[in-house]
Amino acid sequence: MRFATLRLPAGGTTAAVDRGDGWHRLPAPDLSAHLAASHDRDVAELVGEPVGDGEPVLPLPAPAKVVCCGLNYADHILEMGRELPAHPTLFAKFADTLAGPGDVLELPAGSHNDWEGELAVVVGTALRHAGPEQAAAGIWGYAVANDVSVRDWQNRTLQWFQGKAWDGSTPLGPVVVTPDELDPVAGVEVITRVDGVERQRGNTKTLVFDAAHLLSYVSTFTQLRPGDVVLTGTPGGVGSGMRPPRFLTDGALLETEIPGIGTLRNRIALTGPTGAGQELA
Amino acid sequence: MRFATLRLPAGGTTAAVDRGDGWHRLPAPDLSAHLAASHDRDVAELVGEPVGDGEPVLPLPAPAKVVCCGLNYADHILEMGRELPAHPTLFAKFADTLAGPGDVLELPAGSHNDWEGELAVVVGTALRHAGPEQAAAGIWGYAVANDVSVRDWQNRTLQWFQGKAWDGSTPLGPVVVTPDELDPVAGVEVITRVDGVERQRGNTKTLVFDAAHLLSYVSTFTQLRPGDVVLTGTPGGVGSGMRPPRFLTDGALLETEIPGIGTLRNRIALTGPTGAGQELA
Repeated sequence: MRFATLRLPAGGTTAAVDRGDGWHRLPAPDLSAHLAASHDRDVAELVGEPVGDGEPVLPLPAPAKVVCCGLNYADHILEMGRELPAHPTLFAKFADTLAGPGDVLELPAGSHNDWEGELAVVVGTALRHAGPEQAAAGIWGYAVANDVSVRDWQNRTLQWFQGKAWDGSTPLGPVVVTPDELDPVAGVEVITRVDGVERQRGNTKTLVFDAAHLLSYVSTFTQLRPGDVVLTGTPGGVGSGMRPPRFLTDGALLETEIPGIGTLRNRIALTGPTGAGQELA
Repeated sequence: MRFATLRLPAGGTTAAVDRGDGWHRLPAPDLSAHLAASHDRDVAELVGEPVGDGEPVLPLPAPAKVVCCGLNYADHILEMGRELPAHPTLFAKFADTLAGPGDVLELPAGSHNDWEGELAVVVGTALRHAGPEQAAAGIWGYAVANDVSVRDWQNRTLQWFQGKAWDGSTPLGPVVVTPDELDPVAGVEVITRVDGVERQRGNTKTLVFDAAHLLSYVSTFTQLRPGDVVLTGTPGGVGSGMRPPRFLTDGALLETEIPGIGTLRNRIALTGPTGAGQELA
């Protein structure tokens, strides 16, 4: 099964499900609302009329928690000059950080804006102190994400957060695919292209911490709830790891693909100066 | 003026204001709801009947964003063995991380649970790309907080987040005091006591980045909205800086005081083991 939030030709959005026979309405305006209200209901009871034409938009506009893992692919860890970790490296984003699968990403001009294609995990049941098996059963589905990073801000201080939480910088989508259709432990590819040139191609079978272990680990210190999102880290091939480094330019097309889920296609718009707080280096 | 969320003897909570004549009801169950609905209204229009008896609870149960600054007092920076920063070091917490001014704080047994008394800033108007003057005008008020930190988890990886985001670990309150009553730039003291022994006493006049500059800086990359909370960092005297280090013990009383605002009084309860995800070192 796949789920999406679709923009309707007549205006507004709807949550929708495709069980192999095309998109059908669910009784919620988006997947955040669907999961908050109906995550424990059988989808078959909720399916409404077919949606003829609908463009996928940000599937989950309102997660209470977006937790991200860095340094989780062996090849990316090595290209960043670090050692393989004993524990997942975690940081947070906000709901405001997310963007839709076709949205323009506004990023600060003069900064080092880099790509990080990732597999995203969507939580389907409440998890606290969950072991890996319970966490695995609590995975609602998978989406594509790009943890676009403002590297100079990320590296201004010891904490990456300020380079990782720019509003509307992290595209997510285009749909959410349930675990019966996709097995990241067996392996799915995560591919990033910039202006048509492939820059990243990793496989989730090489994740140091897989989705279930990440959810289990996070649930040790905080409750995860339906609709929360966990990003699993990026494979090798980021721009800052290139010699010389390369970054996203104004107007660039950033494509992030996971076969079996779909492709995000986001144009880059560099903007700025953006006010007294910016203090660009 | 001071604002609070009060638990009512008959059950439930109410947002309340004290304009010098005792607590009076506001038409919202808590200050998050009050700010979401009425932040731009004149309080005089909203004031209801007096609240005879009400115990302050977590004033803001639902901030969309809690942003924290580390390494912001010169003395604490030096005790942690670091240099004075050119930019604020920022990380995030969740609404779930917060606790009330008298709540028991459940922390993991076997971990290094440390105290960090702090001045908290509550946002009163939407801020994006705000200069320091606009940000200063957007400060709704100030509260006391303690950024209680699970140091071993904080230091497991490069990112502090997993030691800073334990559910119910960061007490906030007891009330929110408006800027006409309190001037942290001129200086207010931030005091932490553990079992009656003073461990921290700093003054906000020594902040490297004051409240207005922090809000301005954060607003460069993300929108701040009424009810969001920014923690301004902790002064010297944390347990991990002591020789030998000292940490919070089971049953300890943690008191965090800012004269002019009030005192948080939180008992510590060490709990655990807490499941397969915990992997205590």
